[in-house]
Amino acid sequence: MTRLAKYLPILDWGRRYDRDALTNDMVAAVIVTIMLIPQSLAYALLAGLPPEAGLYASIVPIILYAVFGTSRSLAVGPVAVVSLMTAAALGQIVEQGTMGYAAAALTLAFLSGALLLVMGVFRLGFMANFLSHPVIAGFITASGVIIAASQVKHILGIEAHGHALPQVVGDLVAHLPDTNPITLVIGVAATAFLFWVRRGLKPMLRRAGLSPRMADIGTKAGPVAAVVVTTAVTAAFGLADRGVAVVGAVPQALPPLTLPSLDLELIRLLLVPAILISVIGFVESISVAQTLAAKKRQRIDPDQELIGLGAANLGAAFTGGFPVTGGFARSVVNHDAGAETPAAGAFTAVGLAIAALALTPLIFYLPKATLAATIIVAVLSLVDFSILKKTWAYSRADFTAVAATITLTLLVGVEAGVTAGVILSIALHLYKTSRPHIAEVGQVPGTEHFRNIHRHKVITDPAVLTIRIDESLYFANARFLEDYVLDRVVGDDGLRHVILMCSAVNEIDMSALESLEAINHRLHDLGITLHLSEVKGPVMDRLKRCHFLSDLTGRVFLSQFDAAQELARLAAQPPLTAPAAEDAAQSTGDEMIGETASRLV
Amino acid sequence: MTRLAKYLPILDWGRRYDRDALTNDMVAAVIVTIMLIPQSLAYALLAGLPPEAGLYASIVPIILYAVFGTSRSLAVGPVAVVSLMTAAALGQIVEQGTMGYAAAALTLAFLSGALLLVMGVFRLGFMANFLSHPVIAGFITASGVIIAASQVKHILGIEAHGHALPQVVGDLVAHLPDTNPITLVIGVAATAFLFWVRRGLKPMLRRAGLSPRMADIGTKAGPVAAVVVTTAVTAAFGLADRGVAVVGAVPQALPPLTLPSLDLELIRLLLVPAILISVIGFVESISVAQTLAAKKRQRIDPDQELIGLGAANLGAAFTGGFPVTGGFARSVVNHDAGAETPAAGAFTAVGLAIAALALTPLIFYLPKATLAATIIVAVLSLVDFSILKKTWAYSRADFTAVAATITLTLLVGVEAGVTAGVILSIALHLYKTSRPHIAEVGQVPGTEHFRNIHRHKVITDPAVLTIRIDESLYFANARFLEDYVLDRVVGDDGLRHVILMCSAVNEIDMSALESLEAINHRLHDLGITLHLSEVKGPVMDRLKRCHFLSDLTGRVFLSQFDAAQELARLAAQPPLTAPAAEDAAQSTGDEMIGETASRLV
Repeated sequence: MTRLAKYLPILDWGRRYDRDALTNDMVAAVIVTIMLIPQSLAYALLAGLPPEAGLYASIVPIILYAVFGTSRSLAVGPVAVVSLMTAAALGQIVEQGTMGYAAAALTLAFLSGALLLVMGVFRLGFMANFLSHPVIAGFITASGVIIAASQVKHILGIEAHGHALPQVVGDLVAHLPDTNPITLVIGVAATAFLFWVRRGLKPMLRRAGLSPRMADIGTKAGPVAAVVVTTAVTAAFGLADRGVAVVGAVPQALPPLTLPSLDLELIRLLLVPAILISVIGFVESISVAQTLAAKKRQRIDPDQELIGLGAANLGAAFTGGFPVTGGFARSVVNHDAGAETPAAGAFTAVGLAIAALALTPLIFYLPKATLAATIIVAVLSLVDFSILKKTWAYSRADFTAVAATITLTLLVGVEAGVTAGVILSIALHLYKTSRPHIAEVGQVPGTEHFRNIHRHKVITDPAVLTIRIDESLYFANARFLEDYVLDRVVGDDGLRHVILMCSAVNEIDMSALESLEAINHRLHDLGITLHLSEVKGPVMDRLKRCHFLSDLTGRVFLSQFDAAQELARLAAQPPLTAPAAEDAAQSTGDEMIGETASRLV
Repeated sequence: MTRLAKYLPILDWGRRYDRDALTNDMVAAVIVTIMLIPQSLAYALLAGLPPEAGLYASIVPIILYAVFGTSRSLAVGPVAVVSLMTAAALGQIVEQGTMGYAAAALTLAFLSGALLLVMGVFRLGFMANFLSHPVIAGFITASGVIIAASQVKHILGIEAHGHALPQVVGDLVAHLPDTNPITLVIGVAATAFLFWVRRGLKPMLRRAGLSPRMADIGTKAGPVAAVVVTTAVTAAFGLADRGVAVVGAVPQALPPLTLPSLDLELIRLLLVPAILISVIGFVESISVAQTLAAKKRQRIDPDQELIGLGAANLGAAFTGGFPVTGGFARSVVNHDAGAETPAAGAFTAVGLAIAALALTPLIFYLPKATLAATIIVAVLSLVDFSILKKTWAYSRADFTAVAATITLTLLVGVEAGVTAGVILSIALHLYKTSRPHIAEVGQVPGTEHFRNIHRHKVITDPAVLTIRIDESLYFANARFLEDYVLDRVVGDDGLRHVILMCSAVNEIDMSALESLEAINHRLHDLGITLHLSEVKGPVMDRLKRCHFLSDLTGRVFLSQFDAAQELARLAAQPPLTAPAAEDAAQSTGDEMIGETASRLV
């Protein structure tokens, strides 16, 4: 039962469902439904699909997520970035507006769903961590710019194609003379109105005496007002005949049952986009879910989230939708409107199903310019270039990854941008670890603490060199350490001991082990003894499984302080060869440290 | 002058060249030349090229390396693994034995040379470090098996193709009935003789009273003896007419001047193989060079080595050769024979040039089976599967990478094998760092040292939780730490302070910084103060450039001991809120630690 509840979170919250939760969920559902109707139509437009696909993608996926997902507030459906990625992926292989295009969208949703499910079952949620925060921020900002630019064509009433900035802007400029003035008026008015709704309406409603919640609902209804007014104007004045592009006939039906094509060639073409869409969608969704869960002191399970989102996407694939994920705006609205359980999502689905059945004839005259305006206003709130400034100040590596992500997303496309960001941030991380910071350390006076001789006033001994390597030792930096140590000791004639202080060494792999053996051997040739100090437990466990410790000319000390004390004590005696020195240490009864080292390290 | 000498090491050793060095170099050159004549012919055969290509690839490249290289002992020319990779790369695009095949070999050498030069000029030698030692060992072992298997066809006198084991073995089995008995006798006899030369000849010569150096020379001349005897037998008994494949007519000439084709399509096809050949060749060469330099207390410069090898490959491309690198066997012989400077290489080149001019008619009747025998005996000494056992005992991650490298090299091919090995070892390293070891630590009694509470008897305070994160904090593990800390503190009601002990944290990137901010914020909500201790200098420098330190609810302590002492002192006082506690610490005049922290960390 517990195990089942883990995979079906609905069994957990469903048993404790009561009237209060029902009321709260119903209210939230009404608000979200009102917000989602224009948004769903708009994102379908962005994805290059007929408007009803947006409604369909919001119905069954929401219900499936409610069954399998762990977030209490997440609202699943079409979102801006994933819709753009869908358009970019499909645009490369089929022409927009054809039957094949909508069919390919189903296959893409199916592949994304299957990938998410597989990742969830194999608990691969951690893979999303390789998308760094700055890369995500840069990617979303750049995507927002492209999305906004791609919608300008609807505001102008002209043709434009492409999913990267140069192509979109080039097309816009080329077709600028074709601008339809009436469309332009509608589009600019709708955009201006929606911006005003965002900025000015809520304070006004509050001043008019509405409660904060009512003022919120009023604000969320702004896009609906824009839709109603522009549709009415377009219908009343016959503007569709004067060149204003409208949504047109939308089937009056519940989501159809569809079978995604599993043509192997199509799968081959869509596999990489599907991987990127799954990962980006998952990262966006989990960020939102974690933020909202934290506010309510709830926890979400990333691997179960993969299963919930996978089920939602499979649902979209089989009911005429396209790839979906947990959206930021809709989830925040759902949360703020008081949703307590995933049942709020199910009620939203019912609301949207009613809309799909009853309201579709009413949107025949809805201008595409109005939908474009809702998209532009929504995505511009995602655009935030300040990540460039922040990373520049803090870390050049992060800055480089973000700058590459933004530049490539804008100039080449979403797939190139996010791929470059991930690869570059991994490569820069590896590069840094391949040239680790190495500090020579000495004792901070009056303490047992050892720090960098160049940053602190410390006590050192000319016969003892203590090197602190600030990195795990692995193949990428094994040779670097070897070169560093050997370069450092050559010509230092008074040197008798080298201590590698391993407090920052979290791993020693096989390549690094061979380098340590080489260092030990070469130092021995130079008459220098090699010691280790502060070796961590897991590293020591592994060293004990090979010959290194028995070949080591010196000792392994529990702490750097022990090492310094013991070597200072030896130095006070007449010089001995290394093995003899060790015998001496033992014969004088000072076995405690050595024993402690081997027993406790 | 110094700068020029850096790029032209010949200016350095050339000025100090004397009669002693000349004698030693000449003797070494004679020995190496004797060894190289059959070896060069054999590796050309392995690469699928006419035998003279092997001689040509050993003449000009050696001279160019002598001018630009930094190793005193490295002998550059065709080597087994690179010859196999050449055959694998060319076999995919042109048919062996055609004009296009030899031309493509020139282009491959040109591309490798150009890539090596570029890597040298941009000082990218560190990239070779991403090939871990076990992956290299596994790759060379698997390549040795494939090379040996691919030469069995010459011993049997049958046809066989392919550069991966299943294809080679399949072809051998299919053509087994075509075996030429005379070829088989020659091949098996030559192989047995050469194995005996390796194992039994040297001790015998020593017992016969020869000096070690003379015994060595005698041993190295073994392949020459095999060549002379089998050639004489084949010529005398007219065996070439009875189906024994022989080398045939070889032009009697110095290396020709050739222009590698720079056809773009050809370059596109050969680029990836050229990258792999450059990197593998560089790694093999630098390993040999470093081993030999260490014996003489000399240093080599990896980036200058790239330039030396790049020049050698360009030389091969313009003089009828194919990709070359520093070979293990030939370099060790050169070193053992007493070569003192790269001039030994130049003298070897003169010896080989004389061979190309004068000796080529003599090898008309040299059986290919004899060359195959020299290859088999040479490469089987490279085969050593013990790396699997060693890595299994020491590190499963290393084992996985080696096993994948060996399996894929054998079953799919050299390119797939080495690529998989590199990618897998990087992926496994990243995976490990994404789930770091985290230890709760306490004070080791009687010391200022703090260790894992589960491995050591330590002193802890129920109000203070000290967590040591054994990894740099970066995007791959940022969320892991966040989850760990929050899961750990929930329900621990007595907890008032969390200290992150950062002795193993070598970097905090932007993503991790955001996670630390989140942790700080969430702990604050729970009434818990967050402190840091033992933050390294470079990490602290960066933290000072952002808001984190001013937002931090607690303090940054120089050492974990300072942190524990100070928090214990505070706990002895009546409970205060965190900011007040800090004020208290300052107002009681105990500013020393805080000041030390900000000044010295």
